[in-house]
Amino acid sequence: MTQRHPEICEVAPRDGFQSIMAPLPTDEKIAIIRDLAATGCTRIEIGSFVSPKAVPQMADMADIVDGVRDLPARLSALVPNQRGAQAALSAGITDMVYVFSISETHNQNNVRQSVAQSLDGLARIVTDLPARTRLRVDLATAFDCPFDGAIGQGTVLDAVRAVTQIAPHAEVAFCDTTGRANPFVVAARFAAAIALPQTQANTWAFHGHDTFGQGVANAMAAWHSGVNVFDTAAAGLGGCPFAPGATGNTATEDLVFAFNEGGLPTGIDIGLLLQTADRIHALPGGITGSHLRHVPRHRAA
Amino acid sequence: MTQRHPEICEVAPRDGFQSIMAPLPTDEKIAIIRDLAATGCTRIEIGSFVSPKAVPQMADMADIVDGVRDLPARLSALVPNQRGAQAALSAGITDMVYVFSISETHNQNNVRQSVAQSLDGLARIVTDLPARTRLRVDLATAFDCPFDGAIGQGTVLDAVRAVTQIAPHAEVAFCDTTGRANPFVVAARFAAAIALPQTQANTWAFHGHDTFGQGVANAMAAWHSGVNVFDTAAAGLGGCPFAPGATGNTATEDLVFAFNEGGLPTGIDIGLLLQTADRIHALPGGITGSHLRHVPRHRAA
Repeated sequence: MTQRHPEICEVAPRDGFQSIMAPLPTDEKIAIIRDLAATGCTRIEIGSFVSPKAVPQMADMADIVDGVRDLPARLSALVPNQRGAQAALSAGITDMVYVFSISETHNQNNVRQSVAQSLDGLARIVTDLPARTRLRVDLATAFDCPFDGAIGQGTVLDAVRAVTQIAPHAEVAFCDTTGRANPFVVAARFAAAIALPQTQANTWAFHGHDTFGQGVANAMAAWHSGVNVFDTAAAGLGGCPFAPGATGNTATEDLVFAFNEGGLPTGIDIGLLLQTADRIHALPGGITGSHLRHVPRHRAA
Repeated sequence: MTQRHPEICEVAPRDGFQSIMAPLPTDEKIAIIRDLAATGCTRIEIGSFVSPKAVPQMADMADIVDGVRDLPARLSALVPNQRGAQAALSAGITDMVYVFSISETHNQNNVRQSVAQSLDGLARIVTDLPARTRLRVDLATAFDCPFDGAIGQGTVLDAVRAVTQIAPHAEVAFCDTTGRANPFVVAARFAAAIALPQTQANTWAFHGHDTFGQGVANAMAAWHSGVNVFDTAAAGLGGCPFAPGATGNTATEDLVFAFNEGGLPTGIDIGLLLQTADRIHALPGGITGSHLRHVPRHRAA
């Protein structure tokens, strides 16, 4: 087995900004994305192509893309349906994140579709996808649903089979939407999915929240099960606006600290990252949750 | 290998209370220790036998012991020297925790002794120890020192060799005094210590802080390396009063959540624990840091 390297996918501009109701200035969003790229971060989820009526914060996506497309990082955008995928492609997005929830109730609440409809949508998107476009599929509520409670492993593996049959080369993410997963279930669920014969050409990501204090521990569990890509938000900004009580993306700085200090460098400069996290923390209306940002700076970086 | 079970050693009454400068009412301390035992917690560090001039908060230890000695939990007390050990034995303590720091600078600051003097003190205590008394040795700054920075693995293993030669049946704890350890170094350091031929009759504990957001992840790393005993403080009360910037014991509720939800029950009732954590959080002058206490109660328990 070749040496593995962890890769951070910064989601503050998507999962973080969407948690702030009042639209932020487009220039400030662009400046933050540029700052994030300057930390050495190689992947940034810069927003989502959704109805501006549903999420007014994302109404300026075309301008955002224009303001950051020269950056060397992989810039992805989230889409919940075919219309969003078309808009993303039109804007020049080449890293697409398609999202749906394992939980029927949450999927109806989040993207107004049944799981079967979301799978149909994925199939249509894959058919139309330009060859150069990379696809990630985010499986939301892959452990726990704010409405239905615990999601069983069998249900998740069924979804993985359906998704990987449609998209055998996609990156697949298990999203701990509520932050209620524990390190043991994270380890077991990824190990089971990665062992499926039909997923051998897929790659894996973990999107974790720190709401229950398990954020870094769950990411470590995913890493040891073979996951290389981790979604986190600088300053711990955000949560899921459709999941009551679910705030708190895992702070990028907390997870980068674990990897960098542990001898698995992420390529991200902690000092620059903490400066950007401070800028994000200062955004009006945002809820943040970081550990590293609160220790004396000379001890953290 | 027999099935392992995690055991929580609750340290809020020692590492937590000592972080509060103004003495708390003895009755309230006793009530909290009794509440902690009622959660199902089987081990509680109820305080330290130290100079009341150095730590006025611990001046009422004899009364505390009298107020809790009927409890079914194992009740331990921390001692930094022979005088403290004598006082603990006189009070009827049968679970003794002897502490010194791997870092010379920190040991001088914390217990006013060199490491060699602390090892001599341990040898004298072991000689005098009644047969029924259980011994834990806490190795403070086993990863990082607030004054000297990173502590190397060789230095720690040298200390482990010295300690286990003196106390071949003791429980040995690596203490992340500053919270700056990462999960990879925790895993490696315990694995190396547990593999030493001369430590085969010792058992192991991890005393972690969450200051850098690594608390639960570090405990998980220790668990997977073979550690069964975890020091945590309900509500995350406290820190090390002699380590600048080091606040934040890992919250008991955050770690109990990981184990209980992960199918490794600690025997602790999360609902009762959260009630006690609320009571601890309400203590005047305390600094707490918990995740689980902030999520809607029906989701946590």
